[in-house]
Amino acid sequence: MVDALKCLLCACVVCCVGVTEALLQHRRLSPYNPRLLNPLRDGFSYRTLNFTQNVDHFGFRNTDQFQQRYLVADQFWNHDNGPIFFYTGNEGDIAWICNNTGFLWDIAPEFKALLVFAEHRYYGQSLPYGSESYANTSVLDYLTSEQALADYAELIRHIKQTTPGTANSPVIVFGGSYGGMLAAWMRLKYPSLVLGALASSAPVWQFEGLTPCGGFYSQIQQIYESVSPQCVDNMATTWLAVMGCWPNDLDFLTKTFSLCKPLEIKLDLGTLMDWITTVLVNMATVNYPYPASFMEPLPAWPVQEFCRDLKTPLTGKPLLEAVAKGMKMYFNCTGQAACLNMTKHATDYFGDRGWHYQTCTELVMPMCSNNTKMFYDIPLHWDMYVYSFFCHAALGVSPRENWISLQYWGKEIKSASNIIFSNGLLDPLAQGGVLETLSPSLIAIQIPMAAQQLDLRGENPADPPDVRAAREQEKNILTNWLYGWNQE
Amino acid sequence: MVDALKCLLCACVVCCVGVTEALLQHRRLSPYNPRLLNPLRDGFSYRTLNFTQNVDHFGFRNTDQFQQRYLVADQFWNHDNGPIFFYTGNEGDIAWICNNTGFLWDIAPEFKALLVFAEHRYYGQSLPYGSESYANTSVLDYLTSEQALADYAELIRHIKQTTPGTANSPVIVFGGSYGGMLAAWMRLKYPSLVLGALASSAPVWQFEGLTPCGGFYSQIQQIYESVSPQCVDNMATTWLAVMGCWPNDLDFLTKTFSLCKPLEIKLDLGTLMDWITTVLVNMATVNYPYPASFMEPLPAWPVQEFCRDLKTPLTGKPLLEAVAKGMKMYFNCTGQAACLNMTKHATDYFGDRGWHYQTCTELVMPMCSNNTKMFYDIPLHWDMYVYSFFCHAALGVSPRENWISLQYWGKEIKSASNIIFSNGLLDPLAQGGVLETLSPSLIAIQIPMAAQQLDLRGENPADPPDVRAAREQEKNILTNWLYGWNQE
Repeated sequence: MVDALKCLLCACVVCCVGVTEALLQHRRLSPYNPRLLNPLRDGFSYRTLNFTQNVDHFGFRNTDQFQQRYLVADQFWNHDNGPIFFYTGNEGDIAWICNNTGFLWDIAPEFKALLVFAEHRYYGQSLPYGSESYANTSVLDYLTSEQALADYAELIRHIKQTTPGTANSPVIVFGGSYGGMLAAWMRLKYPSLVLGALASSAPVWQFEGLTPCGGFYSQIQQIYESVSPQCVDNMATTWLAVMGCWPNDLDFLTKTFSLCKPLEIKLDLGTLMDWITTVLVNMATVNYPYPASFMEPLPAWPVQEFCRDLKTPLTGKPLLEAVAKGMKMYFNCTGQAACLNMTKHATDYFGDRGWHYQTCTELVMPMCSNNTKMFYDIPLHWDMYVYSFFCHAALGVSPRENWISLQYWGKEIKSASNIIFSNGLLDPLAQGGVLETLSPSLIAIQIPMAAQQLDLRGENPADPPDVRAAREQEKNILTNWLYGWNQE
Repeated sequence: MVDALKCLLCACVVCCVGVTEALLQHRRLSPYNPRLLNPLRDGFSYRTLNFTQNVDHFGFRNTDQFQQRYLVADQFWNHDNGPIFFYTGNEGDIAWICNNTGFLWDIAPEFKALLVFAEHRYYGQSLPYGSESYANTSVLDYLTSEQALADYAELIRHIKQTTPGTANSPVIVFGGSYGGMLAAWMRLKYPSLVLGALASSAPVWQFEGLTPCGGFYSQIQQIYESVSPQCVDNMATTWLAVMGCWPNDLDFLTKTFSLCKPLEIKLDLGTLMDWITTVLVNMATVNYPYPASFMEPLPAWPVQEFCRDLKTPLTGKPLLEAVAKGMKMYFNCTGQAACLNMTKHATDYFGDRGWHYQTCTELVMPMCSNNTKMFYDIPLHWDMYVYSFFCHAALGVSPRENWISLQYWGKEIKSASNIIFSNGLLDPLAQGGVLETLSPSLIAIQIPMAAQQLDLRGENPADPPDVRAAREQEKNILTNWLYGWNQE
């Protein structure tokens, strides 16, 4: 955001566009890193199906339709009205999400559940206008959470109307991160269709006026501090060291960070610093206790790995070399990447462009900082005007920062029921989630040793006991909901 | 609908258009007659305000805004967080609705309530595109119940944010007929904003798959039969008598019915019969126990008045003369109309065009009949294909008959709370309402001697005891809700 302000002052169009992109990249990657999901596991077998959806559920002028992809696994299912476990897909390819949501696969046999994974419109293969789906604001106009929820509602009805043995099947929705928001919102807006929701790591209150904007970055710093206070101090001086190389030592930086493309004086200062920041954020988000294969495989406790050579006071080029080593560990820990690309932030399975658009329209999550020394842009103000300016410049749309809290009830959700809000307390976004139980059927589960969505991942020998306990508690609650359903 | 089928067969474009219009007029007027509301009463004093709304709450391409009108009366209000009684406007001019919803004015002093009447977009003066608001399907694309509910949500938030003394005010929504649906749906979709809803005569289940389509017309016939079985028999033969005048005795018909425009052979048979049918339907809908001034003032128990000269067996021209006398009573009972106009069905305060559009898009309420002899088109089938065909021909849009039951939970509303569903059993649409209490906070009130929305009308000496009792029960429930709110 400081970069954004600088940009306003410099009145340099090229610079602005570059900084805007970096700003949006950064904001996008921070909360919802796709790399936290499990890799493909053996034994996950499903059918891939399509369902015809209206592009616009909320208007009648546009009669276009598109094919929504969804995956079905019925090998565990009790065909006589066994439950349906329905994953409300988030901003990525649903096959990749499905293959990486081990918890549902782990529990499906016990519950004799039908598994359904529905792809979110505008992601993966569910593109309303094919390759033109991102061409302009007209075709993007149907990329909203409300349209996605309506897709899921229509799909659930379709499945129940056309699949023998589902007419009386209770439906429980599941999702993580943005998918967790959608799961919770399904229960708020369509409780006639879904008996309950497990919303994992869903920062449903990370919106304007609901949660102080400062918690995200300070939580990240705390995660690094718990590993090594010196690591944080070193990072705090890294930014000056980077700037000290500008503009005369760019070759050193390019080589030290093994960048694929030489740094450019006018364009790349903000890009480089945002890129490093993004990695710091991502590693905190996916700071799992065991090696996990993301886009680039990571070792167990990656934050610890990153800080390994940063535990003694460093300055200047030795500091930058130690930081670069951590960056290479993150991007290249199996040694396959010949060089690092600052513009590539996530697997292709992740819907970068769609997520940019959503954060610039509905999903405005204010974040700020006054006291997180490890990041270069301190104080990092939240300025809606500036944010809006850049969204409009980059994407041609203006965000409505107060919409989500109106549409999805803000903090006044006590009249709802049957939602589990699980949050790993190592997740920097946990402070935007529901952390306290609100009623006997709005249950918060805090998982101290978990990063984002760890409970939705498949069982792993290295899982800490609190994650195992959380999964047991979730299963017990699901059992109670289903028991209540069967008693009615 | 039989006319629609005939039309398909006759392949006559002019005929088709005429019949389509008649069909739509008929369908529109049947459920939601504006004339059932009270006339302007002395002492109703309010301020007229405007609020800037987004034309499209569910997309970001169209950034147009418009002024939504709303009326505020604070003379009864306890300015220290007294409750807000918020009328969710339906398909008409809100000043006219406000002036005719006496119940709220009657109870506001007792509850020390702030009264707010919000106008529904595309009606009255709340026209998103001014005089062009009905120009084509592009500008009409934002006329939906979801957009209207979002308007009300934004307006409630605006009032609470900007009016001192409302920050902790509980909001209760009220509405009748379609406005009653909106009130109930507000509680389903935005319970964070509204504590409860009084939905009067709201046929929330008069949609595809929820209620048999045959109840509406048979209920109307029963109302006439309770006055005079012979009146029903006479009406059953009226249609043959009309057809017997075709094409040679049109002058007789024109004169007998005092029509402003001479009947035309090719165009007017369906129009005349639909017009008479509409009056039969409307009179049953507004069959109140006291004289009520609608567009044209009506005497007490208008159905009884209509049947006065139809209680002995009649045929041919004497029958038509007796029917015409009843029609004139309905349209002309104060003797002011020089002639009757078959194309005018309702006061100008009523949003004819908007309602046509809504019933041809979202609000598809199937109606049919196999056994109502008093109507000419027996059997009156419900054929979605034909209905859709005519909507597309007339308005360029195709209805989605299953949408409302998905969006507003169909019959699975038990997870909701704090809604009163009141229904006058003399209302032909009551069978599409919620007639049985579903839970301690989803309460149905049946009012045997009431036509549509009688409980929302102001107190009247001729009110039957059951209407008085219903209003008392409603007040008690509101009191309980408010007591619970204040205890929290």
